Amino acid sequence: MHAALLIAHGSRRAEANADLVRLAELVRASGRFEIVEIAYLELAEPDIPASALRCVERGATEVRMLPYFLSMGRHVAEDLDGYRQDFTAKHPHVRFTLCPPLGLHPKIVEVVMERLERC
Amino acid sequence: MHAALLIAHGSRRAEANADLVRLAELVRASGRFEIVEIAYLELAEPDIPASALRCVERGATEVRMLPYFLSMGRHVAEDLDGYRQDFTAKHPHVRFTLCPPLGLHPKIVEVVMERLERC
Repeated sequence: MHAALLIAHGSRRAEANADLVRLAELVRASGRFEIVEIAYLELAEPDIPASALRCVERGATEVRMLPYFLSMGRHVAEDLDGYRQDFTAKHPHVRFTLCPPLGLHPKIVEVVMERLERC
Repeated sequence: MHAALLIAHGSRRAEANADLVRLAELVRASGRFEIVEIAYLELAEPDIPASALRCVERGATEVRMLPYFLSMGRHVAEDLDGYRQDFTAKHPHVRFTLCPPLGLHPKIVEVVMERLERC
């Protein structure tokens, strides 16, 4: 059972948090993962431990933690990797991996160019 | 004279900040803007007022402020829009506009799916 755990920073603005809910619907629709959960690092719920536990309780054997972050800042490199280590220690029968953040992918550059034309 | 001012959150990690430098090179290479500057909201330099002033001093008549952020959180909706208002008041002969953040663009979803396959 493969799980995707999509993780955003979290915001006080509902509009920003709603992006992750919509993203999860799209990942679910892809049919690639039996389990798709979301979590916020800060400022919104569910938090990361609660959603990781939910993946385990739903029977995940592998949980891919996807940082919905643009770059490899401290939140991804330290905070999220710290969670990955904690979960691995607590649930040794489940494989937790941390995916790379979005990064400066050519498609991201295309989106930047589009946004620059829209203002 | 059109300027693109690319703005990221800023990080204590040089690797994260370097993405914006590389992004600016790619926007410059597009030839779409005569002036391309970068700025960080926090934790790194140059800061936003310094780079906005640099656009003005280089002769910009229009400055498009591009939030290199994924969503319309408080930083974009409040902090960056506050800067836009300040700059407009200080430099009334220059048009400052705030572009939308990257958002949940279909290409962003494609990058997420690729990242989920890479871990």
